[in-house]
Amino acid sequence: MSSSFGQIFRISTFGESHGGAVGVVVDGCPPRLPISLEEIQADLDRRKPGQSRITTSRQEDDRAEIVSGVFEGRTLGTPIGIVVRNKDARPAAYEQMKDLYRPSHADYTTEAKYGIRNWQGGGRASARETVGRVAAGAIARKLIRTAADIEVLAWVRSVHEVEAKIDPEAVTLESVESNLVRCPEPSAAAEMLKRIDAARARGDSLGGVVECVARGVPPGLGAPVFDKLEAELASALMSLPASKGFEVGSGFEGTRMTGIEHNDPFVPGKHGRPHTESNRSGGIQGGISNGEPIVMRVAFKPTATISQAQQTVTREGQPTTLEAQGRHDPCVLPRAVPIVEAMVCLVLADHWLRQRSVDAL
Amino acid sequence: MSSSFGQIFRISTFGESHGGAVGVVVDGCPPRLPISLEEIQADLDRRKPGQSRITTSRQEDDRAEIVSGVFEGRTLGTPIGIVVRNKDARPAAYEQMKDLYRPSHADYTTEAKYGIRNWQGGGRASARETVGRVAAGAIARKLIRTAADIEVLAWVRSVHEVEAKIDPEAVTLESVESNLVRCPEPSAAAEMLKRIDAARARGDSLGGVVECVARGVPPGLGAPVFDKLEAELASALMSLPASKGFEVGSGFEGTRMTGIEHNDPFVPGKHGRPHTESNRSGGIQGGISNGEPIVMRVAFKPTATISQAQQTVTREGQPTTLEAQGRHDPCVLPRAVPIVEAMVCLVLADHWLRQRSVDAL
Amino acid sequence: MSSSFGQIFRISTFGESHGGAVGVVVDGCPPRLPISLEEIQADLDRRKPGQSRITTSRQEDDRAEIVSGVFEGRTLGTPIGIVVRNKDARPAAYEQMKDLYRPSHADYTTEAKYGIRNWQGGGRASARETVGRVAAGAIARKLIRTAADIEVLAWVRSVHEVEAKIDPEAVTLESVESNLVRCPEPSAAAEMLKRIDAARARGDSLGGVVECVARGVPPGLGAPVFDKLEAELASALMSLPASKGFEVGSGFEGTRMTGIEHNDPFVPGKHGRPHTESNRSGGIQGGISNGEPIVMRVAFKPTATISQAQQTVTREGQPTTLEAQGRHDPCVLPRAVPIVEAMVCLVLADHWLRQRSVDAL
Amino acid sequence: MSSSFGQIFRISTFGESHGGAVGVVVDGCPPRLPISLEEIQADLDRRKPGQSRITTSRQEDDRAEIVSGVFEGRTLGTPIGIVVRNKDARPAAYEQMKDLYRPSHADYTTEAKYGIRNWQGGGRASARETVGRVAAGAIARKLIRTAADIEVLAWVRSVHEVEAKIDPEAVTLESVESNLVRCPEPSAAAEMLKRIDAARARGDSLGGVVECVARGVPPGLGAPVFDKLEAELASALMSLPASKGFEVGSGFEGTRMTGIEHNDPFVPGKHGRPHTESNRSGGIQGGISNGEPIVMRVAFKPTATISQAQQTVTREGQPTTLEAQGRHDPCVLPRAVPIVEAMVCLVLADHWLRQRSVDAL
Repeated sequence: MSSSFGQIFRISTFGESHGGAVGVVVDGCPPRLPISLEEIQADLDRRKPGQSRITTSRQEDDRAEIVSGVFEGRTLGTPIGIVVRNKDARPAAYEQMKDLYRPSHADYTTEAKYGIRNWQGGGRASARETVGRVAAGAIARKLIRTAADIEVLAWVRSVHEVEAKIDPEAVTLESVESNLVRCPEPSAAAEMLKRIDAARARGDSLGGVVECVARGVPPGLGAPVFDKLEAELASALMSLPASKGFEVGSGFEGTRMTGIEHNDPFVPGKHGRPHTESNRSGGIQGGISNGEPIVMRVAFKPTATISQAQQTVTREGQPTTLEAQGRHDPCVLPRAVPIVEAMVCLVLADHWLRQRSVDAL
Repeated sequence: MSSSFGQIFRISTFGESHGGAVGVVVDGCPPRLPISLEEIQADLDRRKPGQSRITTSRQEDDRAEIVSGVFEGRTLGTPIGIVVRNKDARPAAYEQMKDLYRPSHADYTTEAKYGIRNWQGGGRASARETVGRVAAGAIARKLIRTAADIEVLAWVRSVHEVEAKIDPEAVTLESVESNLVRCPEPSAAAEMLKRIDAARARGDSLGGVVECVARGVPPGLGAPVFDKLEAELASALMSLPASKGFEVGSGFEGTRMTGIEHNDPFVPGKHGRPHTESNRSGGIQGGISNGEPIVMRVAFKPTATISQAQQTVTREGQPTTLEAQGRHDPCVLPRAVPIVEAMVCLVLADHWLRQRSVDAL
Repeated sequence: MSSSFGQIFRISTFGESHGGAVGVVVDGCPPRLPISLEEIQADLDRRKPGQSRITTSRQEDDRAEIVSGVFEGRTLGTPIGIVVRNKDARPAAYEQMKDLYRPSHADYTTEAKYGIRNWQGGGRASARETVGRVAAGAIARKLIRTAADIEVLAWVRSVHEVEAKIDPEAVTLESVESNLVRCPEPSAAAEMLKRIDAARARGDSLGGVVECVARGVPPGLGAPVFDKLEAELASALMSLPASKGFEVGSGFEGTRMTGIEHNDPFVPGKHGRPHTESNRSGGIQGGISNGEPIVMRVAFKPTATISQAQQTVTREGQPTTLEAQGRHDPCVLPRAVPIVEAMVCLVLADHWLRQRSVDAL
Repeated sequence: MSSSFGQIFRISTFGESHGGAVGVVVDGCPPRLPISLEEIQADLDRRKPGQSRITTSRQEDDRAEIVSGVFEGRTLGTPIGIVVRNKDARPAAYEQMKDLYRPSHADYTTEAKYGIRNWQGGGRASARETVGRVAAGAIARKLIRTAADIEVLAWVRSVHEVEAKIDPEAVTLESVESNLVRCPEPSAAAEMLKRIDAARARGDSLGGVVECVARGVPPGLGAPVFDKLEAELASALMSLPASKGFEVGSGFEGTRMTGIEHNDPFVPGKHGRPHTESNRSGGIQGGISNGEPIVMRVAFKPTATISQAQQTVTREGQPTTLEAQGRHDPCVLPRAVPIVEAMVCLVLADHWLRQRSVDAL
């Protein structure tokens, strides 16, 4: 069960970093949705390695093949199977990791859990697993855009100590894609790029925060108890490699306000709906969307793979020193942007479909 | 499905704030676990309203009745049904809320979702729903303590701008329970109490951060992809009323470190296991526990119910003013502590049981 | 998980035969469905013990209490909690069963599974657990009748060697309820009654076949692979105590026909839909309803509780003889009728709701 | 969700009859299980088309590729992805079916459900979907044999009116595989073969009954309520194309016995366990295995594809005549045998793993 996500719009991913292929099965997508390979590939291309000098140099085209579930350009309502072959796997590069545990990686915990580990790369813990999420997310994105005119957009809000202030209501895909970092504020982006270059040069790495907005979400999506929209978004985003924190709306900063300052007063809005001029709720109240933009943030730690020597232990429990080789991102943030979007699209597609049965009468 | 939580140790809650009863069905608890009503009641008593001057004055004993699943002091392996009668419901007090939406509450979103609302209290969105979680959490706590010697403990880390520094490895239940606020640092607790009293006096409310540690979790619990331990903990805790943010380990602060600073080097530990002297990973690496204490934080916004006049709209979309009456907590943090613990116990019990099938061969 | 059923319209039952209460939580029922306690009670009354001389003499009123999820006569969309108190439990009567296993009961297997057993009655294996199913089924019945004009009706087709031929398209509730046996063919019913009386008199028991029809099911419900409508109906009905077989349409008899004889040719039908004049498919083709009546049959073995002496073993493995006392049905068929209907209603309500998300675009 | 099966040992199949590929993702298989491609292929070869003169002439090698989840001959505990390319798809042969509905096929119901249909073959309703089930079933078979010494074996019990009497305790794989029909009784097999040849010659088809035994199942597998072992087996087997009925133990015949005749008395057995000399319970009591052989039967209707002219309607509702071409099995029974085994192995593997968490304390 642990490789499946969603209740109605449900995906199952498979594949290891350096195995034969990675992929996904999407079950529960409604029939007759127009979808093309190009739409899926567009999101995969934003995620793929080797796309710029600040991403890993692993060369993968990440060309998707749809093996089922789509017929004459439309979904059939049956499982959509997507396979992406691994081309540039270099298991031999991991030979040195066979008998030791990389610090702050999943090597030790994988072995503690399973008693076996594919040491040729990160296995399932590798960010390569997110290929399937992004492919499925592209279909989810198409669904919620087509059916409900929902738009999901993410960007890099901070790298290390460099923080950009972005207006979630106004930001555009063009501004996000205008630079390698995917930060829509040009001067902040330039500074971020400088720091990433420097970190890479010294064999170090950086973390940061991705911010994401979902615009046009109709009021009523979500659930009042365990499946609160913020709970499912938190789960979706905390399931990404390297994520350490999640916030919606006012987040941790909101705890420093009083109730009078924090509440979002209602005023009459469009279509007779209530509207809030402030949005400290982040578009969700009591687990259910209120029609305002849903705004959330995810903290990503600095990449665990670094080139400097580190203290660790062997599988036999002996202290040793690791000097990592191999290819990696000095900062995962730029490539995390489309992955965050994919997860948010998956959650919203699922809840939009779940609402169909609530609205049944 | 939306009122159920967990895969193996699975709970389903029911009941509204001002209906006849609230309760829970616990399915999947292993047979032969010794459990008494007193153990369940002990946690309910820490959660119950009216326990001190800084909690709501609603008078509920919250006496639990076990109607099935326990026989001669031990679990049967079959569903454990627990019912708690509502005694001090005052639906009439909510009459004024019938036709308007309280700001930053779930009144509007509930109606947007369901097209109907039990306006006599917060319905399912009320914190009263957490009675079932805490009752079930007490059973989960007993299971993981009995089977794996895991201990889960939470406390108030901050209220408004007052923050206490607590050592998660050393903190004790006695120190947490030593004051009304449930902050184990006495001077911070005194300052928090002062601010809560002041907020209550002026009809305002405060938020803050609850911190939680799970000690003694064996390495190997969790999963590598969607069901990462941090993802399930995030989901569990973001499903609590009023929560706006979640962090594990270094959290958002960790994004300001570099990889060299952030990584947790391994050293030889007890029982031949690797150990990390730092714990920026927060006890979880790649979604799976590594044997170090699991440390997490949850942000709770200031209580939405305040006594001062607020701008809002009616169900017909007309602007109006709300002056709320009724009983509420000026700060939910002290009562949130046992609820946070309950959710963490539920997640760990579920993953501990899930690991049984991984360890099958 | 094992006490929950359904995906969208999902129920969780709880309670043992001789514990404090039995009940059910219904999650996923759409909001705004009008439902009264009387409608639920009506089905419970058809199931309750002591309703006639051919049922067990245990005296239970089976009065249901709705503790949540219904407000002012309509569902809220949130979990509906229903509790039925056990009144006439006589655990002492089971004292003799404490240390031995009743043949063809679940005593031994329960202990093999759980290592513990509530020996005061059949525990979860008791037909008393079906109280929750029938209460939930009454809500499901109301939903599919209101939303889709679907009618579900069952009857006793055979008892021992006495078989009635009934036309599933024409049979009425009145004819089913016209006698104690619930067989709509009066002369067969009289013969069945005679045999049941005789079996009871000699301390023996009888089995038989219940037949069920769902009329008005729209084409398109079900699924093409694992969740085929016939698979879910089979699962639902084979989960009833004492059931040993399931058939849909032509069933086992159909294996004696050739393809030419068995196929149902299509002819133009109402509303431009294809229609089949024969119905060997039983209303389902490829797992999906085709608009014809869904016709199925369930085999129930003779009641395992008999009054004659039987050979068995003790918990310590010693041979012994059991002379059962206690109250039981000499033939479960008459009371099985509303239980079969309840399960079929639950499956159809779930699939009708699941189809909402398929029809989303 | 509808293309997934199982709770712990969980499979998701994908692929259409005439699309690019079919396959399966197996999630939840324990790590460190030795498994080879040959073991999987062996079961696929028993299922594959073109294996004899009485199966369809479609030529598919059905060569499986394992793309993830297995490393150096052992499972990793992570999802096992298996892909089988379609080689001999002939979509053009189905051109005539584009605008009409084949009687007793899923053409019409698929369109009623989805509003779209891949008319190039049976799509998901095709028996080709079972490739994924059989591949996954081979892994499940290996698991339960390795871990619990459970053996699952099926055979053809009847074709049309020819019925073989087989002893489920004694039958061997060798005797099943000794002839094309997979009926272990040679003279019955010869008569069955004669009838199948004759049906094929006249463009007709035949049905029959497959019987299956699971030997060595330990007592305690299953569940007492909805997930009764017989309910899950029924669901598994009624989800196979063309199945119309399911029985366990005494089945429908048992309804003609009285309780005294039907009950299975307990006697002292091996290892201090109770044993039953008769097995009318079919190895399951109250939904839970009792240690005796589990015996079940599945009715398969005659193949819906026949070569003779049939009455049907077009998509526009006009009456027309179909003279089917294309390749098909005149009797699905021989190829159904390994598919039935696969489904039973999947159910038992899942329940064996589920029992790990019941046995946790």
